[in-house]
Amino acid sequence: MDYYSSHITRLIEEFSKLPGIGAKSAGRLAFHVVNMPMEQVKELSCAIVSAKENVKYCKECFTLTDKELCPICNSDKRNHKEIMVVENTRDLAAYEKTNKFEGVYHVLHGAISPMLGIGPNDIKLKELMERLRGDVDEVIIATNSSLEGETTAMYISKLVKPTGIKVTRIASGVPVGGDLEYIDEVTLLRALEGRTEI
Amino acid sequence: MDYYSSHITRLIEEFSKLPGIGAKSAGRLAFHVVNMPMEQVKELSCAIVSAKENVKYCKECFTLTDKELCPICNSDKRNHKEIMVVENTRDLAAYEKTNKFEGVYHVLHGAISPMLGIGPNDIKLKELMERLRGDVDEVIIATNSSLEGETTAMYISKLVKPTGIKVTRIASGVPVGGDLEYIDEVTLLRALEGRTEI
Repeated sequence: MDYYSSHITRLIEEFSKLPGIGAKSAGRLAFHVVNMPMEQVKELSCAIVSAKENVKYCKECFTLTDKELCPICNSDKRNHKEIMVVENTRDLAAYEKTNKFEGVYHVLHGAISPMLGIGPNDIKLKELMERLRGDVDEVIIATNSSLEGETTAMYISKLVKPTGIKVTRIASGVPVGGDLEYIDEVTLLRALEGRTEI
Repeated sequence: MDYYSSHITRLIEEFSKLPGIGAKSAGRLAFHVVNMPMEQVKELSCAIVSAKENVKYCKECFTLTDKELCPICNSDKRNHKEIMVVENTRDLAAYEKTNKFEGVYHVLHGAISPMLGIGPNDIKLKELMERLRGDVDEVIIATNSSLEGETTAMYISKLVKPTGIKVTRIASGVPVGGDLEYIDEVTLLRALEGRTEI
């Protein structure tokens, strides 16, 4: 038997398809939507469609933007000879929030993962190599510190090295404020290997 | 600076307004939407608006439905003399899934909470008393076992008792499969108080 109206069941189904939302959360969201003012419901619904309709890839760095070139690639205050390679736009935003990086980015939209069947051709690697034909001093690899991120970093490093362009990898170690006691062995070893003189 | 397209920022804001979705989850959802096929995006957006547009309260029990009367109130297989009072439609659905309750429901849409400023007039209590003027044998109070739920149960019991209608409260105790070791003292005491002969 259908305990709810079919409209609610359908909305619960749609919400369940989103990442990180299970059946219970989807139910909670659906009931919340029904109790929201109509105006707010329409705003939510429009925001969803308009994001999908208007957002595309920057033709230079492949971040998500609504223009031809994203504000970063379009800025002449940035150092276009320094390219930071990240897995996705959220990682780009994370580095932008530091307000210290003055170079530009390249968004891969994924990482190489044999487990998930994602190969080098499934991410924006060819496009990165294309960009490196231009005037580039350094490629900073800032993929995640996961198995996939590390694999991707190694792969890119091997591809870029023959071109003579400097390739660097962001440091891996104990996070600031981190308590050594609670940090895993691999990270501790990485921190040791990456120690610097003070 | 705006790290993303304004369309994405707006969508993230809209998602953040939903319950249980923080800034990080909202970001994850927004990027997922941008990467979803257009057709699926439209389905999600339509489901949201159509749920809001078509769903209303059942005029008898106040559950959410798209008809005048919900399927339960409309059924002659249910015992309309037995009313189970629940806080919301999800609680109704939880009891319906047991497939054993043959009475009907009354959905309060909340519980009395002086802390949140929710008084007896803010939930569907007047409507319950109205229903009790008809032919009713028993009112089963199935509000949550929280402070608010218990307060509401006490309040309803005091209101209903003078009418002579039987008022009962669902049992509170150790959940089936529960390990006594991990159960809080209040629940253990309730289970003791509510012990039955076997």
